[in-house]
Amino acid sequence: MPDNFADRLLAAIEKKGAPVCVGIDPRYDRLPDEFRTDGAGNIQRVEAIERWSRGVLEVLAPHVPAVKPQSAYFEALGPAGVAAYFNLVHYAEQLGLIVIGDVKRNDIGSTASAYADGHLAARPSPDAITVNGYLGQDGIAPFVDVCREKGKGIFVLVRTSNPSAGSIQDFTGAEGVKFYEHIAAEVARIGSAEGLVGESGYSCVGAVVGATYPDEARRLRQIMPQQLFLVPGYGAQGATAKDCAAAFTPDGSGAIVNASRSVIYAHLRDRYKHLDWKQAVAQATQSFAQDITRSVGA
Amino acid sequence: MPDNFADRLLAAIEKKGAPVCVGIDPRYDRLPDEFRTDGAGNIQRVEAIERWSRGVLEVLAPHVPAVKPQSAYFEALGPAGVAAYFNLVHYAEQLGLIVIGDVKRNDIGSTASAYADGHLAARPSPDAITVNGYLGQDGIAPFVDVCREKGKGIFVLVRTSNPSAGSIQDFTGAEGVKFYEHIAAEVARIGSAEGLVGESGYSCVGAVVGATYPDEARRLRQIMPQQLFLVPGYGAQGATAKDCAAAFTPDGSGAIVNASRSVIYAHLRDRYKHLDWKQAVAQATQSFAQDITRSVGA
Repeated sequence: MPDNFADRLLAAIEKKGAPVCVGIDPRYDRLPDEFRTDGAGNIQRVEAIERWSRGVLEVLAPHVPAVKPQSAYFEALGPAGVAAYFNLVHYAEQLGLIVIGDVKRNDIGSTASAYADGHLAARPSPDAITVNGYLGQDGIAPFVDVCREKGKGIFVLVRTSNPSAGSIQDFTGAEGVKFYEHIAAEVARIGSAEGLVGESGYSCVGAVVGATYPDEARRLRQIMPQQLFLVPGYGAQGATAKDCAAAFTPDGSGAIVNASRSVIYAHLRDRYKHLDWKQAVAQATQSFAQDITRSVGA
Repeated sequence: MPDNFADRLLAAIEKKGAPVCVGIDPRYDRLPDEFRTDGAGNIQRVEAIERWSRGVLEVLAPHVPAVKPQSAYFEALGPAGVAAYFNLVHYAEQLGLIVIGDVKRNDIGSTASAYADGHLAARPSPDAITVNGYLGQDGIAPFVDVCREKGKGIFVLVRTSNPSAGSIQDFTGAEGVKFYEHIAAEVARIGSAEGLVGESGYSCVGAVVGATYPDEARRLRQIMPQQLFLVPGYGAQGATAKDCAAAFTPDGSGAIVNASRSVIYAHLRDRYKHLDWKQAVAQATQSFAQDITRSVGA
């Protein structure tokens, strides 16, 4: 029986001393100068992105428990980009990092199983992926089956961090229940099934809960006591460390906060401009980790 | 200005005489014997799937206006599978077929733009893709921008065909409005923006509406008068041609019905077992097209 994903993630957070995750969202035009050449074709761009991303992972590994590669930026580069994504997943694993593949996949029955095969069961593949739960139990169950069998995890989208999330997710039901609360209750139910909850008391079925909505996060913490929250929205999307704290339990556990652009493109920020790009990423990572750790007060 | 996707799809339906689409969901273990060998490795499986899928497309091309390759089955085979998916998209285009990539992608802002780049703007890429709308306007708009610019289309998930869809999508609001009706109204609003509605009166922003729920389809036809409906659930999922008819307008337009397994794996069905696989696919395709055309009564 492989270790439970929630237990593994919490152990990694404990070891690194900070409940944080860094998103790898590679865009060629934002890479440091040394990785770019005029007129680079797609294959050269993919190679540059893979080389830079490997360097970023090396800088991150001593400081953070987890990384979150964003599949969209790799898919934008075609099949060669997808190959680079899986190469990086493998490299992150070799560096001892937990990998959360941000793929937001969703489908039903055997089609959802095919996604679970490619993104969670395959070797190499991430330790966990993000899943969109709009298709209900039939859409989530095939991913959960792989989680149980392989010691993997999923984070189901519950409350996203974007400005218009509310127009859909705040839809209010007959008794004042919001739609995202309804999804949260489904996630809590699905995630409490046999074989999913680890020794830590947390389930390998977690939830995505945006930091930009702290009041909602507090409410969701109560509906989903066994879910680890993956919390996007810190930094570039405007949420503060204090906003993020709402996703944690009073003892400072139960969540992991993600930052992407503000860390990996630190070389473009005024405060780090005097440093080389690796030093910039290292300092931005430590500053992010300290900011979150202080606010969570664990 | 490229032609509007809705106009192109309707012209193709008119030309082929049937509002039907065939899903390409390749699974190695279901291929005809001649494509399988004992102990085939991943690369051999991908090659076999690509060869068989090309053959299927050739059989389909004279009979149907559109095909819907399901990305999950290609992604399950890793980056080589993803390359095969795009090769098939290109080949379908060469055969004069409209291609709807079933990818159900979703994200926000620049990440959604990256998906739109890879799946709608790239060459080759499908004419349209499926999109999951749970993230709201911010999640849909980046795809719509590419549709407008490149003459492409999207189908946003509104009511899916699976048994547990209702547990999420039927969530009922304060005034008796169901959640899927709320999403439908958003899709109608987004799809009516300038530059999206073609000469046919239909928008390049369509909706996925499962055939297994005909009452809901009738209601959605009223909420989304400018949306083309992509209708899954016929055949293997249990919906009849009569159920599918609910998605169409009284004049027999406005929708396209998809069948996947019942057509592409016709060689496994008792009634077609005496035929070679290409003849089986051809006969199942014609039977499907006739069944739908008769019920729609266009």
